Amino acid sequence: MKARMDTILRPIGTIRSVLKSRAECPKQGSEGAPAAWLELKKRYADALDGLSVGDQVVVLTWLHQARRQVQRVHPRGNPRTRLTGVFATRSPDRPNPIGLHEVTIIEMDGTRLRLQPLEVVDRTPVVDIKPVLMCKPAAKAGFGKRKRAR
Amino acid sequence: MKARMDTILRPIGTIRSVLKSRAECPKQGSEGAPAAWLELKKRYADALDGLSVGDQVVVLTWLHQARRQVQRVHPRGNPRTRLTGVFATRSPDRPNPIGLHEVTIIEMDGTRLRLQPLEVVDRTPVVDIKPVLMCKPAAKAGFGKRKRAR
Repeated sequence: MKARMDTILRPIGTIRSVLKSRAECPKQGSEGAPAAWLELKKRYADALDGLSVGDQVVVLTWLHQARRQVQRVHPRGNPRTRLTGVFATRSPDRPNPIGLHEVTIIEMDGTRLRLQPLEVVDRTPVVDIKPVLMCKPAAKAGFGKRKRAR
Repeated sequence: MKARMDTILRPIGTIRSVLKSRAECPKQGSEGAPAAWLELKKRYADALDGLSVGDQVVVLTWLHQARRQVQRVHPRGNPRTRLTGVFATRSPDRPNPIGLHEVTIIEMDGTRLRLQPLEVVDRTPVVDIKPVLMCKPAAKAGFGKRKRAR
């Protein structure tokens, strides 16, 4: 049980976006979300080594405005949709409101990364960055073409 | 800053697997990982509503055996690979060791879900379940076919 005690996320950085309220945010990045900056804390600079402009990454955020006690929602906030368990939806309201965002790095400036598209609100904490795995059909079909050889 | 204080993950369940040590675990689910059970805490039963056998989901785990202070690794644990920042790898060793696992629900028994494939060690805490989004090329090319109409 010891392991479970240390489940505190330590934000590695913050999103700076033109989106200033949850109401302004598209439901998904693919629905017209703008580019945004990820301002990484300088102490994590070494962990960026190997990432470059053009890479596809999955950014994990902590959706700090979410309501964690919610278990069912109307998908897409539409009251005419059937009430559905949050694990069957991408609602930000869920027990552990971690956001997954597949983005492209379009600019790098030290520990600042410009990412596109990103649908989260300004000042959302970031908790991880992972490369998109290239073994899936999606990668072969298109995303992989933008990956640089390293 | 208030929002950042509440970044404690609350495990929603636990993985029960035949994999009993990190050394036994494949690097990726696609590399021969077995099926495993996700034992969801009963209090989250309502949040499952809408998921069924055959669905593709992303399971988020807390890789509780990871070393959080590591910033560079040799990819795939191979000392002959170049030292690389953890954000450019899928290493479990990283500041916030959240695992992402794209799996299929192959059986459901109340709040127990059998998932395939899953490369994490027995007793790994689970923190979220999300549906695979069907709008990506990958979905159209194949994954989507297994999705049931709801």
